[in-house]
Amino acid sequence: CKNPAWVQANDFSFSGLHNPGNTGNPFGSAITPVTVAQIPGLNTLGISMVRIDYAPWGIVAPHYHPRATEIITVIEGSLEVGFVTSNPDNRLISKTLQKGDVFVFPVGLLHFQRNVGHMNAVTISALSSQNPGVSTIANVIFGSKPDISTNILAKAFQVDKNIVQQIQRKF
Amino acid sequence: CKNPAWVQANDFSFSGLHNPGNTGNPFGSAITPVTVAQIPGLNTLGISMVRIDYAPWGIVAPHYHPRATEIITVIEGSLEVGFVTSNPDNRLISKTLQKGDVFVFPVGLLHFQRNVGHMNAVTISALSSQNPGVSTIANVIFGSKPDISTNILAKAFQVDKNIVQQIQRKF
Amino acid sequence: CKNPAWVQANDFSFSGLHNPGNTGNPFGSAITPVTVAQIPGLNTLGISMVRIDYAPWGIVAPHYHPRATEIITVIEGSLEVGFVTSNPDNRLISKTLQKGDVFVFPVGLLHFQRNVGHMNAVTISALSSQNPGVSTIANVIFGSKPDISTNILAKAFQVDKNIVQQIQRKF
Amino acid sequence: CKNPAWVQANDFSFSGLHNPGNTGNPFGSAITPVTVAQIPGLNTLGISMVRIDYAPWGIVAPHYHPRATEIITVIEGSLEVGFVTSNPDNRLISKTLQKGDVFVFPVGLLHFQRNVGHMNAVTISALSSQNPGVSTIANVIFGSKPDISTNILAKAFQVDKNIVQQIQRKF
Amino acid sequence: CKNPAWVQANDFSFSGLHNPGNTGNPFGSAITPVTVAQIPGLNTLGISMVRIDYAPWGIVAPHYHPRATEIITVIEGSLEVGFVTSNPDNRLISKTLQKGDVFVFPVGLLHFQRNVGHMNAVTISALSSQNPGVSTIANVIFGSKPDISTNILAKAFQVDKNIVQQIQRKF
Amino acid sequence: CKNPAWVQANDFSFSGLHNPGNTGNPFGSAITPVTVAQIPGLNTLGISMVRIDYAPWGIVAPHYHPRATEIITVIEGSLEVGFVTSNPDNRLISKTLQKGDVFVFPVGLLHFQRNVGHMNAVTISALSSQNPGVSTIANVIFGSKPDISTNILAKAFQVDKNIVQQIQRKF
Repeated sequence: CKNPAWVQANDFSFSGLHNPGNTGNPFGSAITPVTVAQIPGLNTLGISMVRIDYAPWGIVAPHYHPRATEIITVIEGSLEVGFVTSNPDNRLISKTLQKGDVFVFPVGLLHFQRNVGHMNAVTISALSSQNPGVSTIANVIFGSKPDISTNILAKAFQVDKNIVQQIQRKF
Repeated sequence: CKNPAWVQANDFSFSGLHNPGNTGNPFGSAITPVTVAQIPGLNTLGISMVRIDYAPWGIVAPHYHPRATEIITVIEGSLEVGFVTSNPDNRLISKTLQKGDVFVFPVGLLHFQRNVGHMNAVTISALSSQNPGVSTIANVIFGSKPDISTNILAKAFQVDKNIVQQIQRKF
Repeated sequence: CKNPAWVQANDFSFSGLHNPGNTGNPFGSAITPVTVAQIPGLNTLGISMVRIDYAPWGIVAPHYHPRATEIITVIEGSLEVGFVTSNPDNRLISKTLQKGDVFVFPVGLLHFQRNVGHMNAVTISALSSQNPGVSTIANVIFGSKPDISTNILAKAFQVDKNIVQQIQRKF
Repeated sequence: CKNPAWVQANDFSFSGLHNPGNTGNPFGSAITPVTVAQIPGLNTLGISMVRIDYAPWGIVAPHYHPRATEIITVIEGSLEVGFVTSNPDNRLISKTLQKGDVFVFPVGLLHFQRNVGHMNAVTISALSSQNPGVSTIANVIFGSKPDISTNILAKAFQVDKNIVQQIQRKF
Repeated sequence: CKNPAWVQANDFSFSGLHNPGNTGNPFGSAITPVTVAQIPGLNTLGISMVRIDYAPWGIVAPHYHPRATEIITVIEGSLEVGFVTSNPDNRLISKTLQKGDVFVFPVGLLHFQRNVGHMNAVTISALSSQNPGVSTIANVIFGSKPDISTNILAKAFQVDKNIVQQIQRKF
Repeated sequence: CKNPAWVQANDFSFSGLHNPGNTGNPFGSAITPVTVAQIPGLNTLGISMVRIDYAPWGIVAPHYHPRATEIITVIEGSLEVGFVTSNPDNRLISKTLQKGDVFVFPVGLLHFQRNVGHMNAVTISALSSQNPGVSTIANVIFGSKPDISTNILAKAFQVDKNIVQQIQRKF
């Protein structure tokens, strides 16, 4: 239906995964996404990609993708990765990956990555949506705008309110 | 394709939402699901239902459904409900609902409910999958089997390890 | 992709299921839908909800949803419900439901409900589309605008044309 | 994943649309379906086909497909076709088709065909499911096994019970 | 959601399959598609149709549909048809069809048709998308605008560059 | 629904992308796929991955994936890549990619890659299906088992039969 004059190579490409992201942050990781926001031609095509850099012992904090499965491969380094199944079992399925290993985080399940080596690490992941979304637990729980009520979080995590507030101040 | 002799009313029905669930637990809520596990005929049909009872000030702790949108309606009582959008905005969209009000939690987004009245409350929700899954944050973060490494969680939430361990012991 | 300033709680909520609908009509029932027409945020999310009130012996006349499965739960009263499988078996799968019972009408199959008690009844249903549609047989067969040819209907139902016309005048 | 030795031309073909079906019945039509029941290789592929023969003035009585859109083309003859939109408009969208004309019945909407010529007519339709289903109104309303309660139908169509029973005896 | 005044029979119909297409071309075939480009009402409905005419020994050259399965039925004549499974087996599944025979080309698999009789042939096919697309191998390989590099094609087909160029000049 | 004891990390991982594939073949490339055949846990999750190695000037010959979009990123080297739109435009959309560049091949469209440097190249691609399939044109056209009729191919490509046979002998 599209006028072929409208189809341009630039709508289907992106230059930006060559350089390591800046891992100088408390988590020691940097995420460079390539979704429909970066490549308009991905619209409706159901796929996207992301490069992640990890400083030594850097982590990608526990998070999930509301609309996508992720398949990750290690380009450089060694990583511990894991996902947790939903209720009632909440099983942690984890593995230490070496360069060239591949792992799958099924759609919507909580997962995380950690560099377990003394060198920088790099991964390339693909996600089964052009707009997968990322919900990082620390941010959606303790850093929402406005905050979730401290009372609710104290009851949810069975801790004192001042611990909740202490974490909320970080996010 | 199915032999009609196999189609039975019992495959399409469930009796079990009449009685309030037992809310005598730290969260003050009880969840009674009706998914494909309870009604085999739901298989492939893309819908399920849940009744939730809330003691006064009871909560359904922050959680999400890996594979479903939820639409909730209040049968009895008053509830505060909210969901948090994904990164980078992490906006909390919340509202206090009265009997007869309806609210939507879009697929995969973190959400919670709290009874804000002095009476018991009851809600009926529907979910857009026959097998929606539930990932409760406290359980998937602090109660997985085996545990997620304390180091990872301490870094993820920017807290001391002993606080992480304190919460892990609860779940 | 959406500007977060555009996300408002009002786009995800609806107030309107508190009051019984008006059942003072020949069918003795009242239908209050909550679809994407009432909650814009439901768009693309694949779910909707409906409250139905029934006077004693009131019915929801035989109908189907062109684009959705329905899961129904009884909030008050007792109901006879049933669906009919498609050709060639045309089996009626029916059951009498009490308060708290749940039943499923698979996508596209003809179904109906009848209050079988002397009290008012109330149900909450969910449907697996934000825009499920309702085709009530009496209306789509005998009340279309313009009418389906009387000749076609007389042959379809194997009755005299004056019987067809008698029903057409009612719808 | 399939062992290629299992792939056989016979799993993807069907011989059986050459001969006119037998239209010697009260409706003056004959339906020859080609679905996954006839061609196993159609499984999951989302399409099927049907040949319909019409005696002069023969009809395909009002019906719908619970899981498919239909696209129909006239191979021989002239046909009146129509579909009715769902509530609340119930608009009849109809047209008289000549040989070579094509028409669409959107998913789940009630529709019918009538030969409006003095010659036999033939159509080929395709449906957007390998297992589309057919719910013929006369059969699912008046011919289910067991019958829908006469009381319900009398109220639904606003007619005397004896008229309902008269039609039920035909189906 | 659509204003019913906008629904018109013309949006759901097309007149244009009555006449044979012009088969006076090197392939001896003519293709008359009926997709969303011809019938706007097909949008989102997941189906389309095509009439193909074949001169004696005419072919529809090897091609595939990027977004659809095809089901084909022979209206007149005899045809050889076949599809080839993907790597690594590349099995040719073929059959000679007579009038009234039906065959399936699964989504995305390469296929072709050839009139194997001395008479004209006619087929009607349906496709499982309103916008199935057609990639004819000769055109996408040897006739793209601009051309694919001759070096690439010579290596791909293991032939001299002048053979590639000879074919490129034809398309 | 799955017994959690059945969930094993090995069902979600694969070790095998560390080493370069063997590019000592006429095309100068090696393809190492990671689909549901290698990782059973990918079933129904709609994603897979592939590593490709390229000798200097090596190509991945023109091919397409019947059931998937591909997103490719260059890990090492420089590549010319392109896809061709379907009929009637057959536009070649191509670009030369450097390390870190990303490109998209929309579902079902013909595409190819060529190493345009004097060094080995490596790419990682993801595909939007756990079972995407690969149809390499040379193989499905000239190397099917059994062969497509030489007559058909000669007419399709407008060349002498002996040229067709010459290519068929290579595949």
